[in-house]
Amino acid sequence: MKALILEVTSAVLGAAREFLVAQGFVELLPVILAPVTDPLRTTPDRAIVSAYGQDWYLTRSMIFHKQAAVRVCPKIFSFSPNVRLEPPERANTRRHLFEFVQLDLEVREAKREEIMALGERLFLYIVQEIRREFGQELAKLGRELPEYPRPFPRVTWQEAYHEFGEDFELALSHRHSTPVWVIDFPIDQREFYDREDLHRPGILVDMDLLYPEGYGEALSGGEREHLPERIRTRIIRQGLDPVAYTSLLKLAEEGLPPSAGFGIGIERLVRFLLGLQDVRETRLFPRVPGVAAAL
Amino acid sequence: MKALILEVTSAVLGAAREFLVAQGFVELLPVILAPVTDPLRTTPDRAIVSAYGQDWYLTRSMIFHKQAAVRVCPKIFSFSPNVRLEPPERANTRRHLFEFVQLDLEVREAKREEIMALGERLFLYIVQEIRREFGQELAKLGRELPEYPRPFPRVTWQEAYHEFGEDFELALSHRHSTPVWVIDFPIDQREFYDREDLHRPGILVDMDLLYPEGYGEALSGGEREHLPERIRTRIIRQGLDPVAYTSLLKLAEEGLPPSAGFGIGIERLVRFLLGLQDVRETRLFPRVPGVAAAL
Repeated sequence: MKALILEVTSAVLGAAREFLVAQGFVELLPVILAPVTDPLRTTPDRAIVSAYGQDWYLTRSMIFHKQAAVRVCPKIFSFSPNVRLEPPERANTRRHLFEFVQLDLEVREAKREEIMALGERLFLYIVQEIRREFGQELAKLGRELPEYPRPFPRVTWQEAYHEFGEDFELALSHRHSTPVWVIDFPIDQREFYDREDLHRPGILVDMDLLYPEGYGEALSGGEREHLPERIRTRIIRQGLDPVAYTSLLKLAEEGLPPSAGFGIGIERLVRFLLGLQDVRETRLFPRVPGVAAAL
Repeated sequence: MKALILEVTSAVLGAAREFLVAQGFVELLPVILAPVTDPLRTTPDRAIVSAYGQDWYLTRSMIFHKQAAVRVCPKIFSFSPNVRLEPPERANTRRHLFEFVQLDLEVREAKREEIMALGERLFLYIVQEIRREFGQELAKLGRELPEYPRPFPRVTWQEAYHEFGEDFELALSHRHSTPVWVIDFPIDQREFYDREDLHRPGILVDMDLLYPEGYGEALSGGEREHLPERIRTRIIRQGLDPVAYTSLLKLAEEGLPPSAGFGIGIERLVRFLLGLQDVRETRLFPRVPGVAAAL
């Protein structure tokens, strides 16, 4: 089983790259250490390395580097290792690792609609390739990956919250037998870099994709704030200190293009494809919050 | 130029994956944090993250994780981000970054000879693909990538040292117009995991490949020590503390297969392919020893 999981992971990486390169994307090398990274309000602890007289944050997502990179190439992606020091209580959610790899992509001048279509097509391509290459093994495991029709259904955050309350993610995921989008998050539910819809103040032009069958979040993304004054306003509204984001603000003052993109976790995708109990089964050397590692 | 460098980097990643997958290799997700990593005697400073009551080393190479992984799949590779806190004096060598990506591969039961042939074929495949895809751009830059004949010439460490002294790497690289192998390093010149040839005590079954034209080291690899008593002996001989390698020794006691492999730095390869002055030009956000980063 361990070998099959590694082979499927490898095939997912290959299929994703193949799909994206055919769409004109350029693969960037990941960033591990940086003076600034994703604030990630739900995971306050930061992994920090001290070197050369300054602190370097381990990447929690490549969001700001993606925004900078689309100045150079219009469509970029990276297989980006993220370190997120989740609280040890998350050890048993079956969905959290404190080190994982995110396929993170961004498109210059893109709108949310275009990125959602890209996400659906990327996901379906990967499912198709895994079905084609590992059909027999999936059958032996009793795992069925149907041909999910496009477009995937959508609900607004407001609708989801109204029906299921704050923990709507797993409830919605359980209820659906195809992937389902959640769109239009309220401003205080997300990071400052998701773009606020100025025609609908307080609502963001963003989205999450949830897997069916209770597997939870697949991908998360949106359009981005790119103007320095908007970024500053959003940082302050979030209760963060703009001084900590000086390098981002400087970049925005030099000029960042509008863009949109998403990130999709590879380990959670492999868990879903193979129908595994726990995301930690996807890694030879899983990094589970609060758990000591053998190697 | 910046866009071309990113496009070539992306094409190198794609060509390497394509070549290796066709040879039956499985791509592993990289490891960023671990209780043990490459000792790397020439770079004593370590990047450490404290989390969950223990210290985690940032990967300096995936050597031990590769040795563990070939228990599961016979041929594996990873695009592995390495953090090596090089001394600030290395800022101006034009070849050192303190964060870079290494294509790291390992083959169960392989001998050095087989891995050297694989390295030559992988390198030539990448050169051919870059020539094919970026021929016009290379011509504009005045960069010529000839068809290097196989096998590449070899010299022993002893011969290289005799002719050029300790800093033979750049001298040898300058003198050759094709890639050149250096083999048979003496035991005290390398890490403890390169296998000692017991028929020639003190000589390792390992190798480096140097680029031509003064670009220096391309790849580094060898056969591995895999028996617990041999590993322990080598650790002690190196003046290291076996207690720091408890998890590796435990793994070896459970049983590690013989293996061989190498690692090749992506940024140095891109520098060579494009004939760039400095490896830092290959990255949008270069991590140069002792130099503050903009983002």
